[in-house]
Amino acid sequence: MFKQRLFTPGPTPVPEEVLMELARPIFHHRTPEYRKMLEQLTRDMQYVMGTSQDVYTITGSGTAAMEAAVACAVAPGEKMIAVRGGKFGERWSELGAAFGAKVVNLDVEWGTPATPRQVADALRANSDAVAVYITQCETSTATINDVEGIAREVAATPALLAVDGISSIGAVPFKMDAWGVDIAVTGSQKALMLPPGLAFIACSAKAWKRIEATRGHAYYVDLKAYRKALAPPEWDNPYTPNNVMVRAACKAVAMIRAEGLERIWAETHKRAEAIRAAAAALGLAVYSKAPSDSVTAVKVPDGVDGEALAKTMSKDFGVKPAGGQGKLKGKVIRFTTMGYTDAWDILAAVGALEMALARLGRKVDFGAGVAAAMKVLAG
Amino acid sequence: MFKQRLFTPGPTPVPEEVLMELARPIFHHRTPEYRKMLEQLTRDMQYVMGTSQDVYTITGSGTAAMEAAVACAVAPGEKMIAVRGGKFGERWSELGAAFGAKVVNLDVEWGTPATPRQVADALRANSDAVAVYITQCETSTATINDVEGIAREVAATPALLAVDGISSIGAVPFKMDAWGVDIAVTGSQKALMLPPGLAFIACSAKAWKRIEATRGHAYYVDLKAYRKALAPPEWDNPYTPNNVMVRAACKAVAMIRAEGLERIWAETHKRAEAIRAAAAALGLAVYSKAPSDSVTAVKVPDGVDGEALAKTMSKDFGVKPAGGQGKLKGKVIRFTTMGYTDAWDILAAVGALEMALARLGRKVDFGAGVAAAMKVLAG
Repeated sequence: MFKQRLFTPGPTPVPEEVLMELARPIFHHRTPEYRKMLEQLTRDMQYVMGTSQDVYTITGSGTAAMEAAVACAVAPGEKMIAVRGGKFGERWSELGAAFGAKVVNLDVEWGTPATPRQVADALRANSDAVAVYITQCETSTATINDVEGIAREVAATPALLAVDGISSIGAVPFKMDAWGVDIAVTGSQKALMLPPGLAFIACSAKAWKRIEATRGHAYYVDLKAYRKALAPPEWDNPYTPNNVMVRAACKAVAMIRAEGLERIWAETHKRAEAIRAAAAALGLAVYSKAPSDSVTAVKVPDGVDGEALAKTMSKDFGVKPAGGQGKLKGKVIRFTTMGYTDAWDILAAVGALEMALARLGRKVDFGAGVAAAMKVLAG
Repeated sequence: MFKQRLFTPGPTPVPEEVLMELARPIFHHRTPEYRKMLEQLTRDMQYVMGTSQDVYTITGSGTAAMEAAVACAVAPGEKMIAVRGGKFGERWSELGAAFGAKVVNLDVEWGTPATPRQVADALRANSDAVAVYITQCETSTATINDVEGIAREVAATPALLAVDGISSIGAVPFKMDAWGVDIAVTGSQKALMLPPGLAFIACSAKAWKRIEATRGHAYYVDLKAYRKALAPPEWDNPYTPNNVMVRAACKAVAMIRAEGLERIWAETHKRAEAIRAAAAALGLAVYSKAPSDSVTAVKVPDGVDGEALAKTMSKDFGVKPAGGQGKLKGKVIRFTTMGYTDAWDILAAVGALEMALARLGRKVDFGAGVAAAMKVLAG
């Protein structure tokens, strides 16, 4: 009878009715029933990503869709810019290298966003770069980038802008078409309230022009194959899809659509504000200079072992945050506020944080964090 | 109250207790609990694939693992041989082309297996080929290749042998180490009694030597990354895995291990024999010259519309076979005998075939097929 609450920034909690979809009888994917599901999911994901372009569903991790964004749009020898401010910015850079691109790294300090000006400067210095790759929310540092501002700069050039929206799309504002984003990528296990295993990608007309002309090394993630398979009235995937995940995704994304994105963004913001207020009330700092609403990294206070803090919260108090990644290991703990998380879950997370800090020897004014969170949640 | 029985060669039926694993609460994958699951799955998949090499679990379709087998082992410009006798042999060839290999196609007539002699001759004519890619069971034609014999020929050369065992491993004998197969690939939605969404791959020491020395274009399916992440005591995946599928796979593959592969192979053989005997009793021919026990393609008799036959069986009688693919569309119907299918399911399939043939105007001696199947099943 030890209740577990998941606060890791992926996987995030999955609603019971979505889990139940996974357990319904297996079925075949080359059927009118499946085609209808994939059509519905495609339409609903267009809503979530803010695009009129088709959204392709890839059976794989978010990284598979990131690979599609690189391998299909940048030919070996061509130049790309990767904005690196954390582990997932590094992934764009590594993907470029793996597929033979000349990668220019635009490095920003961890916890600091890249500015539109920095991206514009990098493009001026590398006018032969064919694409810029950024992360909307850098999960490792819980930092949000100004995609709208950056997109404005990139749109004025021949280069494409590709955005890793894995830890952000569906949780914070993202408007692919309105902002002029060329390639957008997301994954199932974040704001979409699903287990890991599906990735989504959409491309602008500008991106398609480049993809059509590019001979990259892609097969499993070849976007041209996905486009051909999806083309109405086909509504098909090029390779056997995880069709029970697609069925579950129909359920989850329909729930998002029924709730409405604006409302979800507002609630996610409020939950993140509550976590940040609670941290401040407990004398803890937020790590990022531009904190994302989808995930919050709280600095571990001096004298407390960060790995022990995350473990104590999870093992003793049933609230599981994530620790730090890479060079932030032991230095931050991260709480997601994406997806199927409500106000009372936030109180639980803050309560467990208070208890765990006290257990690890820090003096805690019990209730200070919870009260601060409550004030925000009631606002 | 219309019961559906799935006879498509992927997805195949999934046991209820495996489906239930998918619906259990979501959990985080960077945990001791998950590492234990992945370790168990890896060990059990070693048993299923007949290898002491680590088996890597990729979140994706079987095609993702096929891509790993090509992209990581053949550098651009190197030569590979693809044995093509159907749609999935063609996939090896297409993968080679997508990753810049010089592809030599060894074409065999659809429905006819490639002989060890043909492969040996192709290797003699192309002594610079670094790998041979074959399909154990070519699902599109339901034809089995003599992997053991072919492996003996390839082992005598510096080339690797990679086998697509997606529609065969776990259903028919496959002994990676004993036969000297260098790269073996399979998928979750066939003999493993799972939905689609996981792929598995293992590599021999000979294969690893080549993979280590090869600079191919791979990231999401980079086998070196999978090996590094799995290395004990890590038992991890390089990218976020579909962890609920891994949990379900632990359950399914443990069931296979408990049953025993020899027994499963024998039962699968008997079920395939029963289908073949029923077809003969109904005056129908088996398409393949070397029929696989994992899937059977029955020729649609003259005067019957093959697409209508599959549809009638499914819509009117609740038994869903697959139709033909590519040039066999409308000409065959295919029944799987892999995985979670028992003797009485076979009677249902044959019964539905008799009913559907009669409904489409063919004279049927009702019970002839079922009785023939029963004789085999009782043997």
